[in-house]
Amino acid sequence: MDYLEQIGMQAKENSILLGKLDTETKNSALRRAAEYLEENSGLLLEANRRDRETAQQKGMSQGLLDRLELNGDRIRAMAEGLREVAGADDPVGEVLMMKKRPNGLLIGRKRVPLGVVGIIYEARPNVTADAFGLCFKAGNAVILKGGSDALHSNEAIVALLQKALGDSGLPKTGVQLIASTDRQVTARFMKMNGYVDVLIPRGGAGLIRSVVEGSTVPVIETGTGNCHIYVDASADLEMAAEILFNAKTQRIGVCNACESLVVHEDVAAAFLPMAAARLAEKNVEMRGDEKAIAAEPSIVPATPEDWGAEYLDYILSVKTVRNIDEAIVHINRYNTGHSEAIITRDYANAQRFLDEIDAAAVYVNASTRFTDGGEFGFGAEIGISTQKLHARGPMGLKELTSTKYVIYGNGQVRR
Amino acid sequence: MDYLEQIGMQAKENSILLGKLDTETKNSALRRAAEYLEENSGLLLEANRRDRETAQQKGMSQGLLDRLELNGDRIRAMAEGLREVAGADDPVGEVLMMKKRPNGLLIGRKRVPLGVVGIIYEARPNVTADAFGLCFKAGNAVILKGGSDALHSNEAIVALLQKALGDSGLPKTGVQLIASTDRQVTARFMKMNGYVDVLIPRGGAGLIRSVVEGSTVPVIETGTGNCHIYVDASADLEMAAEILFNAKTQRIGVCNACESLVVHEDVAAAFLPMAAARLAEKNVEMRGDEKAIAAEPSIVPATPEDWGAEYLDYILSVKTVRNIDEAIVHINRYNTGHSEAIITRDYANAQRFLDEIDAAAVYVNASTRFTDGGEFGFGAEIGISTQKLHARGPMGLKELTSTKYVIYGNGQVRR
Repeated sequence: MDYLEQIGMQAKENSILLGKLDTETKNSALRRAAEYLEENSGLLLEANRRDRETAQQKGMSQGLLDRLELNGDRIRAMAEGLREVAGADDPVGEVLMMKKRPNGLLIGRKRVPLGVVGIIYEARPNVTADAFGLCFKAGNAVILKGGSDALHSNEAIVALLQKALGDSGLPKTGVQLIASTDRQVTARFMKMNGYVDVLIPRGGAGLIRSVVEGSTVPVIETGTGNCHIYVDASADLEMAAEILFNAKTQRIGVCNACESLVVHEDVAAAFLPMAAARLAEKNVEMRGDEKAIAAEPSIVPATPEDWGAEYLDYILSVKTVRNIDEAIVHINRYNTGHSEAIITRDYANAQRFLDEIDAAAVYVNASTRFTDGGEFGFGAEIGISTQKLHARGPMGLKELTSTKYVIYGNGQVRR
Repeated sequence: MDYLEQIGMQAKENSILLGKLDTETKNSALRRAAEYLEENSGLLLEANRRDRETAQQKGMSQGLLDRLELNGDRIRAMAEGLREVAGADDPVGEVLMMKKRPNGLLIGRKRVPLGVVGIIYEARPNVTADAFGLCFKAGNAVILKGGSDALHSNEAIVALLQKALGDSGLPKTGVQLIASTDRQVTARFMKMNGYVDVLIPRGGAGLIRSVVEGSTVPVIETGTGNCHIYVDASADLEMAAEILFNAKTQRIGVCNACESLVVHEDVAAAFLPMAAARLAEKNVEMRGDEKAIAAEPSIVPATPEDWGAEYLDYILSVKTVRNIDEAIVHINRYNTGHSEAIITRDYANAQRFLDEIDAAAVYVNASTRFTDGGEFGFGAEIGISTQKLHARGPMGLKELTSTKYVIYGNGQVRR
């Protein structure tokens, strides 16, 4: 049995025990893990320094180096995240339905853990603790495959998480790290159907695509967001400019940020100069079609690639449309199923947009930036699902569970 | 644009319209389709005759020929199936949750169709109408890829379904058949992520494996069942024999039939002769381990392959265990996540089995044959999911839907 198979088998074995734990045991292990992270921050910072030195020598960009960095604040945030999950309701064991059939069978449906959850992510060490916390609280065994550049940081974090499990009388291998930088190992990990129940990729579009395409294990697709704001002919243009500014610039580089403005041509001449003036405060580059440029000369010409782009940068594409039908067709063609908003005063158009736009979250007169477990009032999230199976939108503890039918009989046979 | 892309694009376009239909329109289209199938049974029988002639010339086995056959009864059953779905509650539009956030945002979660559902199945023409009915009622556009040997039958059925849609004022391409026998086309169909939201394979283990392995579109794995009955030391042995006989022989060749008996060694000597006598009524071959053979000499030796076998035949594997722990480990190792039963009088063992066996449906003192949408009181089903994502166990109309967050604001931006 090789390295990866051993990890898989151990996870599978542990998943049965972890799935049965009482809530208090899980919560105290999570709080202990939080303490260990804080108490050993020196050790974590040292491991992280090694990762960052190597990355710098390899010429990693400043943005990626920032994601790779651990510091005192980030370590405290990881610990706080674990404590928050400890304080959240336990989803496991909830009985969703129970009924007696005419033949006397009592049929119930119970929330149970998924079993073994695999997380594939980039070189962001804080994901290591966050993903563990949520998966563990939901009763799952976890296998982590983080970005190779964060290997020392991840090893240090996982060692502390494992110590917390061990010191709580639980199997240390309830969380395991694939400590390999070999791409073949990751490729095989994505095909471990006998051991892994679900894979959740967390990261950019390239990572997610490679997991969706390479995996035979069921995947929950998260994350990429080409989010649109459609400014209807009847919109309150002041409100539209405020929401657009918020959705585009409040935080760059997140999946619920606005990447594209769609504007009704009847209000393009009035709205685009307003929008451009507001966005100029943050030096946002606007790339538009001909009618957009005619309405606001600071807009530069868009290429067809712009309509599908998730910039994660101070850039916005601008598309003019003749009516809401064109807006809906355009958005449904180019969006990534994440978050879409209409700004309108028109009742029928609001309803049509909510009904016809195919996305996880659809807004009327609000910023797309609200698509977030915390903002929705669900607590911590492991990501935003942009697929339609299993979970759609922010995924919290409940989305890390499955269900099981339990049937109580007294000798029933089928006639 | 090629054939397959055109099918995908049309389905995607139609899915928006189909998702918005009111229930009455869907129900009347389903009832019209049922009528058309019955009124044109001559045409269907003729198309089916051609398929069967070709299949016979190619030397198709009697079992497969039987599955391929359409006759008056089966056509009536297809029509009845469509009428039953017409009578079922519409799952679309149900509001699962709605709440006001402190900032005034009103956040709701609504049941919506999956969008485009692809069904890949074998040469069983009745699946064509059944799958269409359920997917359509749940508001989805459907793309069917049936077994090549049933192509004429499927074309004839789909033409009538399309006529019913057209005559109901709906797009005929709400249901489409991939009328190709080229395996490359099926392979490409499984990777149409932009157009197809979910694939559901219906058929034997080989078909399902090929879809799970070849697909990049999310798959709901259905079907194969290596179901066990564990006879505990404290079992009522009369009840155990009755349930075993029912689960093994009431219907051979179905996924919830029992394929393996696990028996506590303390009762092997008492139970196995009873079981063998009962099963002999149907000439069931029993293949067991040494202790099983010692208890009942008519049992023949099992090979290691027997533990994982889904026979779908009058064969049963028999494994003796020293205690319930061994039983649970054995079943979790070899089962396919379908249906598992314990026969016991012991409270703690019943609870342990329900908690620790990893399967869609877990029974105490009842036959595994009850895992079925109708028997559970859910109405018609499109299959039994044996995976943990999205749906687990019998899948009816609700399992053919997703959800969407709809958010009503009045200018909210994120701070």
